Amino acid sequence: MATDRTVMPRAASEIRTFDVETDVLVVGYGCAGAAAAFEAASSGAQVLLLERASAGGGSSALAGGEIYLGGGTPIQRACGFDDDAEEMAKFLLAALGPDADREKVTLYAEQSVRHFEWLVERGVPFKPSLWDSPTWVPPTDDGLMWMGENSWPFTEIAKPAPRGHRPTSNDFGGWLLMKQLTAAVAAVGVDVLCDTYATNLVEGSGGDVLGVVARRYGMEYTVRARRAVVLTTGGFVDNEEMLALHAPQLVGHNKNSDGSDDGRGILMAQAVGAAVKHMSAGQIGISLVPGLIARGMIVNGQGQRFITEDTYPGLVGQAALYRQNMDVWVIIDEQGYEAVPEPERWGVRPYHVAGTPEELAALIGVPPAGLRATIDVYNEHAARGQDPLFHKSDRWLRPLVPPFAAIDVKMGLRPPSESGSGRGSGASVFTIGGLHTTVDGEVLNLDGRPVPGLFAAGRATSGLHSWGYISGTSLGDGTFFGRRAGAAAASM
Amino acid sequence: MATDRTVMPRAASEIRTFDVETDVLVVGYGCAGAAAAFEAASSGAQVLLLERASAGGGSSALAGGEIYLGGGTPIQRACGFDDDAEEMAKFLLAALGPDADREKVTLYAEQSVRHFEWLVERGVPFKPSLWDSPTWVPPTDDGLMWMGENSWPFTEIAKPAPRGHRPTSNDFGGWLLMKQLTAAVAAVGVDVLCDTYATNLVEGSGGDVLGVVARRYGMEYTVRARRAVVLTTGGFVDNEEMLALHAPQLVGHNKNSDGSDDGRGILMAQAVGAAVKHMSAGQIGISLVPGLIARGMIVNGQGQRFITEDTYPGLVGQAALYRQNMDVWVIIDEQGYEAVPEPERWGVRPYHVAGTPEELAALIGVPPAGLRATIDVYNEHAARGQDPLFHKSDRWLRPLVPPFAAIDVKMGLRPPSESGSGRGSGASVFTIGGLHTTVDGEVLNLDGRPVPGLFAAGRATSGLHSWGYISGTSLGDGTFFGRRAGAAAASM
Repeated sequence: MATDRTVMPRAASEIRTFDVETDVLVVGYGCAGAAAAFEAASSGAQVLLLERASAGGGSSALAGGEIYLGGGTPIQRACGFDDDAEEMAKFLLAALGPDADREKVTLYAEQSVRHFEWLVERGVPFKPSLWDSPTWVPPTDDGLMWMGENSWPFTEIAKPAPRGHRPTSNDFGGWLLMKQLTAAVAAVGVDVLCDTYATNLVEGSGGDVLGVVARRYGMEYTVRARRAVVLTTGGFVDNEEMLALHAPQLVGHNKNSDGSDDGRGILMAQAVGAAVKHMSAGQIGISLVPGLIARGMIVNGQGQRFITEDTYPGLVGQAALYRQNMDVWVIIDEQGYEAVPEPERWGVRPYHVAGTPEELAALIGVPPAGLRATIDVYNEHAARGQDPLFHKSDRWLRPLVPPFAAIDVKMGLRPPSESGSGRGSGASVFTIGGLHTTVDGEVLNLDGRPVPGLFAAGRATSGLHSWGYISGTSLGDGTFFGRRAGAAAASM
Repeated sequence: MATDRTVMPRAASEIRTFDVETDVLVVGYGCAGAAAAFEAASSGAQVLLLERASAGGGSSALAGGEIYLGGGTPIQRACGFDDDAEEMAKFLLAALGPDADREKVTLYAEQSVRHFEWLVERGVPFKPSLWDSPTWVPPTDDGLMWMGENSWPFTEIAKPAPRGHRPTSNDFGGWLLMKQLTAAVAAVGVDVLCDTYATNLVEGSGGDVLGVVARRYGMEYTVRARRAVVLTTGGFVDNEEMLALHAPQLVGHNKNSDGSDDGRGILMAQAVGAAVKHMSAGQIGISLVPGLIARGMIVNGQGQRFITEDTYPGLVGQAALYRQNMDVWVIIDEQGYEAVPEPERWGVRPYHVAGTPEELAALIGVPPAGLRATIDVYNEHAARGQDPLFHKSDRWLRPLVPPFAAIDVKMGLRPPSESGSGRGSGASVFTIGGLHTTVDGEVLNLDGRPVPGLFAAGRATSGLHSWGYISGTSLGDGTFFGRRAGAAAASM
């Protein structure tokens, strides 16, 4: 495990006096913890928020900042899009499946406009303008972006509307979300204790959770929670042993985290009987420029296309890792490459260029006959604005012309001369699975019943998702179900 | 959960007198339980074996019967194959990965010849003759078959040798393995108690496992194990809730089990702190005739080939489900279809026939341009004995000629008129993940330390595998690590 100390619970009977008492104890100060603490304090409870780092923010503050919201938000309407909760739920069930959590998705979609308003009330700004092409994170401060809703096969499943809402910040915006939530948490009088790493739950004789044991400046620190504990400790991408046990395909990649997503909250809850869900799932931040594959193609080790290139790039990443073992190449021509402004190429350069598909294939170790057939079929139909295999939008369809270039995703998104890292895995990943919870954040045990006194939200839990992933659903379900967990914990 | 009764442990202090006491208690009478009980009793321990059904056998008795063995067994040598443990381990690490259990695989390969001898000593017969083409289960009683070792990419990873060892039985042979193991168990004086369903572990005050609580003819029945409990209760494919939580892609398929693989053993162990591993993995028995795809091809919803067709068909099934969502078709011509003897076609018939790839594609809803390009590339190279995309053996390569036929794997392996079931999911599945154990069958807890008094083997555990699966590794690691668990439990 991540530490040589046990994750097993401490019996309450062994603790003579607690160092501190509170009504609701929230463990972990990312977006889910902030939302939980805010709601619990707003409903009148005394709230203590523990954070292992020296300040709040967590992986949320390092995130792109997209929050998946829809159903007809003011930003959507201002940008000219109709949307409703039903279409939003249809898209999420398809994109996050198979077997996405229908109850959570339905509730999340139905209350999405209200959740948008809650964020605005907390001071999170959204600009009513649309970034209208595939990318990971726009360089602008546009407040809305597509997350694959306008790509096949989703276009056949739900009425497309862009739902990626962005706090008003150029590039990454997670910091701004957390800045505003931190101010909100302070305003409602939550006590925040940083540099305090919760290691074990405290269990009563009836199996109820009564608090936590933490480490603080090398000393043991005990907290009694009179009403409930809310775990918002993040995922487990930084725990190599948990990854190997549950998500072996995520081993060996860069980690998309603040370095402290060690799964400790999940483990300490399992140690009191909590069940987990979908622990093998992961978000795959593949190292490619979405605007380039939209204008070209991505092929596998046989030179075959394998996904609609203009979809949400995380779905490209999942397909590349889980279906193609990251044996993938971006194929582009000069016009396509130049169409993406240099600053938006993130240092990506074509390392292999050739005059024919066969020559290019030979350079990158792909079967020449495979790449030739792929480009021939693509070009023949692109000339007519068609993509019979993957139905890419005709906006991006154009026959590729020689010379052809191949880009190795394993070279990463910065020039190797700058990063010094050379060829990597081609992806940054984080985990999606976690504790099995109800829509109110109750942590369910192996019998499917709530563990008394224990709640959770954010990436310590399995949220809306089972397998698929769309950006904005972590900050989205973390804040949404964090709020619900905080309110439920306060009402105990 | 599978039952409305809790899986949580019973405190030993609550049980006044146990209904029966034994040294070693083995729970579940499949191949792993039989092997564990035999070894424990052989080393002098008093052994009780509980089985929920009215007789032993379990899913093992319904299995094809292949046992994955190698490293130079007498059967391999008699058939003219050199093999050694190192090449066997290389193949298994590649076929069962990523991140197959290196320690288990290495030990399993090193001691494989000895394990073969142990099976022969128990009366399991193996005939020194080879079945030499891809299939699920040969119709003959040949004692040896390939399990993909001679297919790409494994041919580039390890020296090929066939390692599927088959008890001497036409078609399925799991019954014969269990018949002989059952006789061996009886011969060493193991007490067998059938119609007894273990529901909970009994836990001492120090967290050690002291026995089980069972249900027997509607009454509670308690067993005290003086040395240890060995769980050999099988996987969880029959538990819909566990499938949805851990392996959502396995939901909705036929189940390859005796109907009682409800995961209870896994859950009752988790309830005392046991860790699990690779719970999302599954074997996918795809409903196709391997001899037909070897002579033709299997394509996805884009009309693309996606795997070497002459490999072990379970790997075809995993690729079809996990990578193609079971949106796959078998493509064959008349000569290829007729080359498989009628009895070996298991009722499979081509429902769609057309004179051109485009016409066939239109019939089955696949992009005509995709299927056309696939067949053109395949035929052009097959004429020269080459398969640049997937390196199928030239033994099976021949240009396909019109008329072309498409076979829907969702029609299953029996004529619909006989089964009455019509179109199904196209697969029968079982789970591969389970309890996290050492090579001696000790069950590890969330801290990575053995749960005192608790052992496990077979499909209740994560065995050699992480993700991939090869037939013969369940009866193989079930008996091999079952023996080790039984011996270790007896030595407590």
